Amino acid sequence: MTPFTPWVYRSRDIYRHWAPVFKIISILWIVLATFMLVPLVVLLLENDPDAPAFAVSVLIIISAAALTWLLTYRASLELKPWQMFILTAASWVTISGFASLPLILGAPQLTFTNAVFESVSAITTTGSTILVGIEHFSDGLKLWRGLMQWMGGIGIIVMGIAILPFLKVGGMRLFHTESSDWSDKVMPRTGGIAKATLTIYVSLTLFAIGSYWFGGMTLLDATVHGMSSLSTGGFANSDASFGAYSEQPWLLWMASLFMLSGALPFVLYIRFIRSSRDALWKDQQVRGLLKLLLAAILVLSAWRVLHGDNWFVSLTHVTFNVVSVVTTTGYASDDYTLWGALPVAAFFYLTFVGGCSGSTSGGMKVFRLQIATLMLRNQLRYLIHANGVFTTRYNQQPVTSDISRSVVAFSFFFFITIAALALSLSALGLDLVTALSGAATAVANVGPGLGDIIGPAGNFSSLPDAAKWLLCIGMLMGRLEILTVVVLLTPMFWRR
Amino acid sequence: MTPFTPWVYRSRDIYRHWAPVFKIISILWIVLATFMLVPLVVLLLENDPDAPAFAVSVLIIISAAALTWLLTYRASLELKPWQMFILTAASWVTISGFASLPLILGAPQLTFTNAVFESVSAITTTGSTILVGIEHFSDGLKLWRGLMQWMGGIGIIVMGIAILPFLKVGGMRLFHTESSDWSDKVMPRTGGIAKATLTIYVSLTLFAIGSYWFGGMTLLDATVHGMSSLSTGGFANSDASFGAYSEQPWLLWMASLFMLSGALPFVLYIRFIRSSRDALWKDQQVRGLLKLLLAAILVLSAWRVLHGDNWFVSLTHVTFNVVSVVTTTGYASDDYTLWGALPVAAFFYLTFVGGCSGSTSGGMKVFRLQIATLMLRNQLRYLIHANGVFTTRYNQQPVTSDISRSVVAFSFFFFITIAALALSLSALGLDLVTALSGAATAVANVGPGLGDIIGPAGNFSSLPDAAKWLLCIGMLMGRLEILTVVVLLTPMFWRR
Repeated sequence: MTPFTPWVYRSRDIYRHWAPVFKIISILWIVLATFMLVPLVVLLLENDPDAPAFAVSVLIIISAAALTWLLTYRASLELKPWQMFILTAASWVTISGFASLPLILGAPQLTFTNAVFESVSAITTTGSTILVGIEHFSDGLKLWRGLMQWMGGIGIIVMGIAILPFLKVGGMRLFHTESSDWSDKVMPRTGGIAKATLTIYVSLTLFAIGSYWFGGMTLLDATVHGMSSLSTGGFANSDASFGAYSEQPWLLWMASLFMLSGALPFVLYIRFIRSSRDALWKDQQVRGLLKLLLAAILVLSAWRVLHGDNWFVSLTHVTFNVVSVVTTTGYASDDYTLWGALPVAAFFYLTFVGGCSGSTSGGMKVFRLQIATLMLRNQLRYLIHANGVFTTRYNQQPVTSDISRSVVAFSFFFFITIAALALSLSALGLDLVTALSGAATAVANVGPGLGDIIGPAGNFSSLPDAAKWLLCIGMLMGRLEILTVVVLLTPMFWRR
Repeated sequence: MTPFTPWVYRSRDIYRHWAPVFKIISILWIVLATFMLVPLVVLLLENDPDAPAFAVSVLIIISAAALTWLLTYRASLELKPWQMFILTAASWVTISGFASLPLILGAPQLTFTNAVFESVSAITTTGSTILVGIEHFSDGLKLWRGLMQWMGGIGIIVMGIAILPFLKVGGMRLFHTESSDWSDKVMPRTGGIAKATLTIYVSLTLFAIGSYWFGGMTLLDATVHGMSSLSTGGFANSDASFGAYSEQPWLLWMASLFMLSGALPFVLYIRFIRSSRDALWKDQQVRGLLKLLLAAILVLSAWRVLHGDNWFVSLTHVTFNVVSVVTTTGYASDDYTLWGALPVAAFFYLTFVGGCSGSTSGGMKVFRLQIATLMLRNQLRYLIHANGVFTTRYNQQPVTSDISRSVVAFSFFFFITIAALALSLSALGLDLVTALSGAATAVANVGPGLGDIIGPAGNFSSLPDAAKWLLCIGMLMGRLEILTVVVLLTPMFWRR
C-alpha cells in the first residue's frame, strides 16, 4: 500500500486490522457488565445507597460495548499473532479501566488513580489494596472486589492455555496442546477445554466457599474469600487481611489448600478427571512446587520453633503465609516481617517464584525455574566434558533450544522489569526495600511487599500517585507475561 | 584403575595428577614471599616493631614453598583442564591464607577470621575492610595491604587472559586469543603477552603513584592508593577511605581515571601500543562501559544539582563514586547513601555491573550485559517474525550459541550465588539491605555495601564471624568467575 492509496481503501485496511480485535474486546466488556449485575442485585435487595453507582457503571460499559460491537460486528474472528498481542494487552487494560467505575462513582469515592490501582490490582489477581476500613464498605463493593479477582483468575487461565503458547512467549510452548491451536477459527477449538476449565474453576470455588462458610465465615465473607483464594488474588474483607481469622486453624488450613488449588495447572485437573488419576502427582511442575513449599515451610517453621513459638501455631501460620506468597495470592495471617531476618529474606525471594503455568498464579512460574536448573546442570557437565552432548527432558518432553531460549528471555525480562520499576519507584523517593519488594510484588502479582509502608501490615494508599501508576504498569506487565507487552513497545512490531 | 591396583601405582597416579598443580602453586608462593620482602625492608629501615611479624611470615611461606617444590619439582607442567580448575581455586585460597600471616603475627593482632577476611578481601581486590584506625598502623602494613591488592589485580588479568577462556567459563571464550592456548607447554606461549601485560600494569601504577604524589599525597599514601586504584581493589590508608581527600578535586579526578584504567581490557592496551591506535575506542565493550558510566554520572549529578548541590562538587563526587563502584574498586569519597533514595538504588544496581573482561575488575562484566541485551533483542524479533533467522555479532565476531549459553549460565549462577549468600547472611541475623548488598558487594568484588553497618561509611568488623567466612567464600567465588568453583563442587567433576 503506497501513501497514495485513496483514503477509503486505507480505512478499510485499518478496519480489517483492528475490527476483529475490538469485536472480541466488546464481547469481554459485556461479560464484565454481566458480572457487575451480581453486586448490583445484592445492593438493590439490601436497599443500599451504593446501588446507583453500579447501575450507572453497567450502563456505561454496555453502551461502550454496544457501540464497539456495532462498528465491528462484521469482522471475521480469525486473528493473526500480532492481533493477539494487541488483543491481550488491550483487553486487560480496558477491563481494568471499566471495572474501576463503581469505585469512583460509589461509596469509596476513590480518586481516578486509586480506583484504577485497586481494579488493576484486582483484575491482575495481585491483591495489593489502597482501601482502608474495608470492613465498613457495602456488601456489593466487597463482592465486586472478589468478583474482579475471580474474573481475572479465569481470564489468566484461558490466556495461559489458549493464547500464550501460541505466541511463543516465555517458553509456554512447552504446554502447547491441541487446544492452543488458533490457526483456524478461534471459538470452536478452544470451546471444549474452556468449558471444562470453567466448570472446574467454578466447582473448586464453590467448594472453597462452602468450606469457609462451614468454618464460621458469613456467607458474604466466605464468597469473597472463596473467589479470591481460587484466583490467587488475595483480596480480603478486612484491613487485617486473613489476620481476622488468625485464631482459626481450620480456615487457615482450608485457605492454604484452596490457594494451592488455584496455583496448579488447570489442564491437569481436566486430565485427572477425564483419564489419568495420577496426572497431578506425576507432573514434574506440580512436584517441584510441592517440594519447594515443603522446604520453605519446614525451614521457616523450624526457625519459629527455635525462637520459642508453639509448633502447631508456627506450622499453621508459616504454611498459610508461605503458600499465600508462593501461589501469589498475598493474604497475610500475621505480620511475617516481624518473624526475624531470615523469614524476611525468604519471603522476599518467595515473592518471585509463583505457581504453575496454566494456573491463576503469577511470578516466574515453577517450570521456568526447573528448566533453568536443568540448563545450568547441563552447562556444568559441558565444562567438565567439553565434547559431551547433553539433552534435557521435562515432563518426558525434550526441551528444545527454542524453549530454553524463551525461558531465559522471560527470566531476564522479568528481572529487568522489576529492576527498572524499582529504580523508578526509588526516583519517587521510596526506600530500597519498599521499592524492590514493591516492584517484585507487583510484577509477580503477589500483593504485599516488605517494609513498614507496603508490608503485610501496611497499605498502598500512602504511596505517591506516580508510584501507583508505575505499579499498575508492573502488575499488568507481570500478568501478561511481560514479553507480550514488551513486544508492543518495539518499533519493529509496528513496522511489521 | 581397579581398587586392587597396588598402592605404589596408585600413589604414583596421585602424584602424576596432583604434582603439577602444586608445583605451580609453590612458585606462586615464592612470588608472594618476594613481595612480602618489600614491607619487611621498609619496616627494617624504619626500625618498626612490626618487622619480625613480616620476617616470620616470609620464612613460613618460603619453607612451605620449598617443601612443596621438593616434593613436586619433577612433575611436567602440562596441565589438563581439570587440573587448571583445581590450580585456580587452590592458588587463590592458599595465597589468601599465607598473605594473612603478618596481620595475625603483627601489630593489628587480628583474629584468624578477621585476618583471613582482610587478606581475601585484598587478594580478590574487593576492598572491604575490618580494620579500624588504619591511619595508626605501620607503614609496612599499609604497604602490604596495597601490595596484596596489586598482586591480586595482576593475578586476575593473567587468569582472564590465559586460563578462563580455555576453561570455557562464562563466555570468556569470546576473548580466546592465541595467547590463551594452553594445549601445549604453558610457559613459552603465555610468556610474551604476560610480560607485556605486566609492563603496562607497572607503568600505569607508577603513573598513578606519580599523579597522586604530585597531587599532594605522601609517597606512602600515593604508593598504596596507586596500587589499589589500578587493581580496582580500593583499600585506602584511612577509615574514611578516599574521604580523606574529599576536598581535593585533582586527586578525585585522577583516581577516577586510574580506576577506569584498571577496568579496561589489558590486551587492548597491548594492541593499542603495538599496532592499532583506536583499539580501545573501537572496542564494543569499552564503549559500553563508557556509555554506562556517562549515563549514571549524568543522572545522579542532575539528581544532586536538583537537590541544591553545587554542580562541580556534585559532578566530581558522583563521577568518583560511580566509577569506583562500577569498576569494582570500592573507594568512597563521601557517604553516597545519604544522597537520597534514587542514588541508593542506583549504587545497589551498579554494584553488580563490573568493568571489562580481562581487566582487574569484578562483577558481571560489561560484555555479558551486552551479549544478554543482544540475545533479548533477537528474542523479541523472533516473537514478531517467527520464521526469521537472527545472528548476533559482538566486536565483529559471531556470538555462537556456545558463548551465549555460557553467558546465560554465568549470569544465572552469579545471581544464584548472591541470592544464596544473602539468604545465609540473613539466617545469621543480618537485615535484608545489609544481607543483599553485602552478598552483592562480595561476589562482585566491589567493597562497600549499603546500610548503616557495611555501607560506605561503615566497616565489616562488627559482622559475626560466620558472616565473614561466608563473605570470604563469596569474594573468592566472584573472583574466580563462580563456575570455576561450582564445577569443583559437583560429584561429576571428581568422578571424571
